Parts: sequence; structure tokens; C-alpha cells
Amino acid sequence: MILVGEKINTSLKGITEAVRSRDREFIARKAVEQAENGAHYIDVNCGTLIDEEVEALPWLVQVVQEAVDKPCCIDSPNPLALSAALRVHKGKPMINSITAEKERYDSIIKLVQEYNAAIVALVMDDEHGMPKDAPTRIKVGVRLIADLVQAGVALDDIYIDPLIQPISTDSNMALVAVDTIRGIREVYPGVHFMCGLSNVSFGLPRRGLLNRTFLVMCMLAGLDGAILDPGNREMMSMIYAAEALLNRDAYLKNYLKAYRSGLLD
Amino acid sequence: MILVGEKINTSLKGITEAVRSRDREFIARKAVEQAENGAHYIDVNCGTLIDEEVEALPWLVQVVQEAVDKPCCIDSPNPLALSAALRVHKGKPMINSITAEKERYDSIIKLVQEYNAAIVALVMDDEHGMPKDAPTRIKVGVRLIADLVQAGVALDDIYIDPLIQPISTDSNMALVAVDTIRGIREVYPGVHFMCGLSNVSFGLPRRGLLNRTFLVMCMLAGLDGAILDPGNREMMSMIYAAEALLNRDAYLKNYLKAYRSGLLD
Repeated sequence: MILVGEKINTSLKGITEAVRSRDREFIARKAVEQAENGAHYIDVNCGTLIDEEVEALPWLVQVVQEAVDKPCCIDSPNPLALSAALRVHKGKPMINSITAEKERYDSIIKLVQEYNAAIVALVMDDEHGMPKDAPTRIKVGVRLIADLVQAGVALDDIYIDPLIQPISTDSNMALVAVDTIRGIREVYPGVHFMCGLSNVSFGLPRRGLLNRTFLVMCMLAGLDGAILDPGNREMMSMIYAAEALLNRDAYLKNYLKAYRSGLLD
Repeated sequence: MILVGEKINTSLKGITEAVRSRDREFIARKAVEQAENGAHYIDVNCGTLIDEEVEALPWLVQVVQEAVDKPCCIDSPNPLALSAALRVHKGKPMINSITAEKERYDSIIKLVQEYNAAIVALVMDDEHGMPKDAPTRIKVGVRLIADLVQAGVALDDIYIDPLIQPISTDSNMALVAVDTIRGIREVYPGVHFMCGLSNVSFGLPRRGLLNRTFLVMCMLAGLDGAILDPGNREMMSMIYAAEALLNRDAYLKNYLKAYRSGLLD
């Protein structure tokens, strides 16, 4: 499972103030915590600070990479901010995200090519927006993957985001995401999947319970990446258990190691 | 989700003594607890007391049904014990279990017909024993369902047990069970599934974590029944969450009710 630490995001409490005041220590500590808890990438997102995103995003990348030896998942729809952040990133970055919407696709694909980046790709296009049903999402996703591969992106660098929406507004939305993963994986078994989980439980109580139950379903369908808080013990326990059950953990080595390290709840 | 309470089983601590001494109060209390926690059926199993099973099993049925207004899941491979227990059972019983093994099939099917019972059917036959792979289990299961329907059993009364085996001895066993459920459900969408979960985690630490993670996977594949301890809060919380996510809980009514009743962990 490829884990992207989600905690450096100005939509979260404390981060906006830390970015506005360029508090290096606060951001560095968030990066170190997530790396120690097992994050493979550190997500950086300051999209709520529209007026200064182009300066703040590269600052975040530099602070994170001075603190930990990890690549960033550079999270913005803004090509200017992405470009500034990619320029200072060391190693192979992940860009979050591209879509099949023509304008966004054309501006982001150039950055993916220039920086040989891994890319999170949302199953959206101009014709359908955010499709409501799995067959349309699968169609949009399959076409987007074909375009990316055609543009020289390795399948192994593509992370499809099936779009997670709340079951509180449409009770079928968890299944739509699961079916989208399964359907795209049937066509492209080599592609990766990546998403945040918490949207699924928006507006409901006991969100953590819903999020981790949903994660297990997505993993059975083929999800092999997630944007989450790696300090969430219950979620991480369930990931270890799911990998063991899905026969993705040779000799149950990681599960037993996590147990001995006191990580399993 | 159809829940069968598993706690009245002489393989569990305290039950052997209670059955041997015909301690009505102890057994009645176990039945009441499970019914209060949401069990739809109360499993009764005294298979370890081979010398007295034929007397003890009907005694258990009577004690349970005097204590709670629930049907029993009468759990034995012994047709004599089953027959004695069925004779005293009130309402529509569930028999646990039949297989496609000729001798067992022939003796149990008569009881299913005579008592119009629901039947748990294991995907085993004489040729393959307990098949190691999903395609064979699916083949055995599909043939067994066809035979049962041919014998006059309603599809809605058949609960297929996909056979749960430990991932500690064969790391593919969780997936074999999941694929068996999915494969049989594709052929017979109207059939039910029912199994115990705990075998999957045999020999491993944090069994509860593995069991409930596995339950979610099986539910996504189509499992709609389980033999478990309905007093296991973490497992029950996950069932409420999974039903909500699988769009099997109209208006999220059960999930929200469980939350308000303080049942969700």
C-alpha cells in the first residue's frame, strides 16, 4: 500500500497559520511525524491560500524535504503553483492531479513530462464533469489512461482517483467508487489507484468507522494507494490486516512485525 | 445481515459444564443476551459431547426457545441428533449443515424437506473433499444448490457456506472464500451466504481485527449472513458501517439508529 500523508493541508486546523507565518518548525514536525508513521509521500496543499499559493507551495516542498527524505505529493489544480513547486522538488515527485478536462489536461501533462512525475488522475472530463455512475467513470478513466500512456507516461506512474463522494447525499456513492476501481483495473491491471477516503462519510457520525470500512472494500477492489493520516492507528491496523488477507503480505511479515511493534489495535 | 449467535457451543468455555449439568439458567441467559444484541437465530451446538448429543441437542433447543422468541440454527452433522432437535423446535428452523457428500446429503435432505427448514450448505463433496481453490468450490456449490432446488428447497432457504480456512496455513484462503461467494452469487443471485469468520485468523495475533476486516470483504462479495457473537461491539459496528456503504441500509436508518443507541465504536 502506497501511503500519502495528508496532514500538511491548509484546510486543516493550524496549517493555514503556519504557512502564512512561514513557521518552518511546525511544518517540519508534521512531515517528520508522518514519515515516521509510514508515509511514502508527503502531500503538500495550500490551495485555500489563493493569493500566495505560487510562493507558499514551493516553500512547503523545501521545508518538507529538508526535514524528511521523502518525495512530495504536490497537490494543486494550479499549473503555476505546481510548476514553482516542482522546480524546487528533489527526486521523483507526484503531482495531484490531472483530469481529462482539456484545459487542465493540456497544462498539467507538460509538467508531468518535464519532471517525469507520478500523476494522480481524476476520472473527470469536460463532457461529464464528475460522472455519477461507475460505467461513465470507467469510460473516462480508461480513455484518460490511454491518453497519458500515449503522452509517454508509464502505467506504473499513473494513480487513478475514482472520486469519493458522500453516501449521505447519494447512498450508492461508495459502491460507485468500488465498481470504478474494479472496472478500470480489469482493463489496466498495471495501473495504480489513489484516493482520500473521508469524503465518503461527510455529514455522518463515526466517520472513522465508515472511512476504514470503506478502505477495506476499496482495497478488495484493487485500491493500492491512499491519502490519509498515517498516525490514525485504527486505519493503519486495518490496512495491515487487509494486506494480510488479500495475500499482499508475504509470510504475513508486515502484519506480524506491526503486531510486535505494538501498532495493531 | 442475518445474524446467528454462536455462543451456545460446547467448544466454548463454560458451555460443556452447563450442558452436562443441564443448567437451564446459564443457557437461557446466553440465549437472551444474544437475542438482545440482535441475533436472528440462536445456534445450538453440542457436538463435542458425542455420547449424549442426541439427548442434549433437543434439550438446548427447548431451553433456548423457552427463553427467547427466536428460531434456532441447529448445528450438527449427526442426523439422529438433528432429528431429535427438530422434533421439539417451534417455528421454521435452520439446519447447519448439509454438504454434497452423498451419505450426508441423503440423510440431511430428508430432514430439510420434512421440517421445511432453512439449510446451511457447505461447498464440499465426495470427489473433492474441501476444495482448495475457488473455481472448484463454485462448481461444487452451484451443483449443490441445483440439487437442493430440485429437491424442493426454496432458493431463499439456502445459505451457502464458502468454507473459511486460516491464512496462516495458506495465505490465499481469504481470497478463495471471497471469490467463492462472488462466483456462486453470479450464478444464483437469490441465494444466501452464511459462515463463521474466526477460522480465517487461526494461529495469528489480533484475531478480532482480522475477522472483522475479512467480514467487510466477504460482505462486499455478497455475504449476507454470519455466525458470530452479536455482543462483539467492534464487529457489529463494522456490520452497520458496511451495510450503510453497500447501500443495504435505506436512508442509513439502521446506521444512525445504532449510533444514537451508542452501539457504534
